[in-house]
Amino acid sequence: MSAKAAVKVSELDGEAPESTDFANYFCTYGYIYHQKDMLEDHKRTGAYYQAVLSNKRQFQGKVVLDVGTGSGILAIFAAKAGARKVYAVEATNMAKNARALVESNNLSHVVEVIQGTIESISLPEKVDIIISEWMGYFLLRESMLDSVLVARDRFLAPGGALYPSHAAIYLAPIRSNLVNQRTSEFQNSMEGWAEFLQEMRHYYQVNLDCLSDPYRSEQKDYYLHTSQWTDTHPQQLLGPATPFIKYDLHTLTLEELKAPLKAEFLLHMTDGGPVDALCGFFDVWFRGSQQAPTDNEVRLTTGPDPTGATHWGQQTFPLHPAIDCAPGDQLRVVLEVSRRADNQRLLHVKAAVSVEGSSIYAEQSKTPRNFHWNIE
Amino acid sequence: MSAKAAVKVSELDGEAPESTDFANYFCTYGYIYHQKDMLEDHKRTGAYYQAVLSNKRQFQGKVVLDVGTGSGILAIFAAKAGARKVYAVEATNMAKNARALVESNNLSHVVEVIQGTIESISLPEKVDIIISEWMGYFLLRESMLDSVLVARDRFLAPGGALYPSHAAIYLAPIRSNLVNQRTSEFQNSMEGWAEFLQEMRHYYQVNLDCLSDPYRSEQKDYYLHTSQWTDTHPQQLLGPATPFIKYDLHTLTLEELKAPLKAEFLLHMTDGGPVDALCGFFDVWFRGSQQAPTDNEVRLTTGPDPTGATHWGQQTFPLHPAIDCAPGDQLRVVLEVSRRADNQRLLHVKAAVSVEGSSIYAEQSKTPRNFHWNIE
Repeated sequence: MSAKAAVKVSELDGEAPESTDFANYFCTYGYIYHQKDMLEDHKRTGAYYQAVLSNKRQFQGKVVLDVGTGSGILAIFAAKAGARKVYAVEATNMAKNARALVESNNLSHVVEVIQGTIESISLPEKVDIIISEWMGYFLLRESMLDSVLVARDRFLAPGGALYPSHAAIYLAPIRSNLVNQRTSEFQNSMEGWAEFLQEMRHYYQVNLDCLSDPYRSEQKDYYLHTSQWTDTHPQQLLGPATPFIKYDLHTLTLEELKAPLKAEFLLHMTDGGPVDALCGFFDVWFRGSQQAPTDNEVRLTTGPDPTGATHWGQQTFPLHPAIDCAPGDQLRVVLEVSRRADNQRLLHVKAAVSVEGSSIYAEQSKTPRNFHWNIE
Repeated sequence: MSAKAAVKVSELDGEAPESTDFANYFCTYGYIYHQKDMLEDHKRTGAYYQAVLSNKRQFQGKVVLDVGTGSGILAIFAAKAGARKVYAVEATNMAKNARALVESNNLSHVVEVIQGTIESISLPEKVDIIISEWMGYFLLRESMLDSVLVARDRFLAPGGALYPSHAAIYLAPIRSNLVNQRTSEFQNSMEGWAEFLQEMRHYYQVNLDCLSDPYRSEQKDYYLHTSQWTDTHPQQLLGPATPFIKYDLHTLTLEELKAPLKAEFLLHMTDGGPVDALCGFFDVWFRGSQQAPTDNEVRLTTGPDPTGATHWGQQTFPLHPAIDCAPGDQLRVVLEVSRRADNQRLLHVKAAVSVEGSSIYAEQSKTPRNFHWNIE
């Protein structure tokens, strides 16, 4: 035996125990190279820097909690903006590096690094601001927002503010090379399988035909039912991106967040099809709370950008086969995004898509077509 | 946040709970594409085929246990060789495919697929033969031999045979491009870090100097203290491979296997140095037991081969800096291979190496040099 492939997903049913979750999830954030990847995404780090340093008035003399501080950078920003006290909570051993970074930047009198999960730690006081960089692919992957909401409910003083305060997820119809590429990789894989069956019969007199269907299904899941990290160029867009869900993080409940996200919306086609993929991404806004709004609103967007993607890129969902439509048509999308039973930090997306409008394609699209993808 | 990197290792101390182990280890074997990778390694599958089918006399009318049957292939070989009954045990959902394969090859009357771990299942009778393909990189990675020994102690009848029955691990001094390559990758990484520090100071007025040492150490571990999968050509050998440990699987105890492996041995230099890497690999032999020896001994070797490596390849351990020595010299190696505290299925290797002989290098090598590597 030899397990070359990295293991991503447990086969366990239901919610993983804490130890498994720690092994599979938190561990990545224990490496400095990974922190560096995030820090040097200047659209990301710069947005947080602006959100904090251009709103010093909101931070002056305040108590701040940084959920999942990692290297400690957001806690340091908050301290530099004049916070009286910053609690910087980090589950992994990166906490040690955060503590060293705080010390070497002479902010130990303000920033206190606490190693632990937000669910297990306690704080001696309520906080005025919770800052956190919790966003995963397609906003929701990693389910780390759960911990921010737990922190809000446990530690945020009435009227306190979340940074960021709002979020939205978008989908856009695009033209992508990805689908052709993945389709031909899938076909190559199945040709390789046919040769493999012959070899096994020839060398060992064993007939593996009965595995062809499960293999095809496994490979199809991998090549065509898994979304991909992409750096999408705006010219690939065949119509504007539509925000299909908007969250106010001050009022969103943990129960709402954990339930499957259901949405029905239209994607307007500026150009004609074939639409061979949907492109998903998110924005977050720093607006403070109603009682403590920011002076300067900051927005972090992760959409298609000619200057290149953030480290989140976009998630591209292949449509196989592609959807034909004309300029002026609309795609009606009935979407469901749910957490995976085998790993609550990963997602499964289902979409039923039909064409509406005056084109011949809309007439032919009587029954919605069903798609599904895993976000790995 | 965005956890791009696949997570392999838990940060948990000590032995991982069963659920974590399942998530991190067994899961890979639940994919048919991974089974295919192993099956189409014909040096591997062919060796087992020969070991069973060229020793039909040993299998005729016998009861066989296949530990970790995967696709079921070894159980099918045993049935084809005339076994009366084969228990094929598999922990993952691959068990379903194994069952289908057994049925479609009309061997359901002989092979019974049991889904479960060898530690948790029970069998209605003792078995005459245990067959298993349990070998990981450098033989011991994955620690799956543990389960085979548990199976032996629980289920093997007195005098019964293990297939394979013997194993050995080798090291050889080689010349490798890998070390130069990894060294320059490490240097590039540190240059990137220096630029990163400047950016962080410039954009955000934060000084990350204090993370330079831990980053250097993290990157050095990754680039220079981690062994690599390689397909080593025999012409890279600077001297013969030395087997530094030989196991008789019929007598090896679980306690011996779990304890750190300590060995001291000489590597003879046919050619001169610099030796910039050690190449590690293993052989296994199918000899049956003393009471039930095979008619035809089969040997599976995973050493450097001009026709290409098995799927195990070899593990290359970089020596940085390289060791100078002359033809005729010997490298004295004091070796320790132990299981990792953070993941019992992964390994840590320590070596103290000195040069002996009549060359000037031997004279200069008064103190052994110390190396260490993780096998990921």
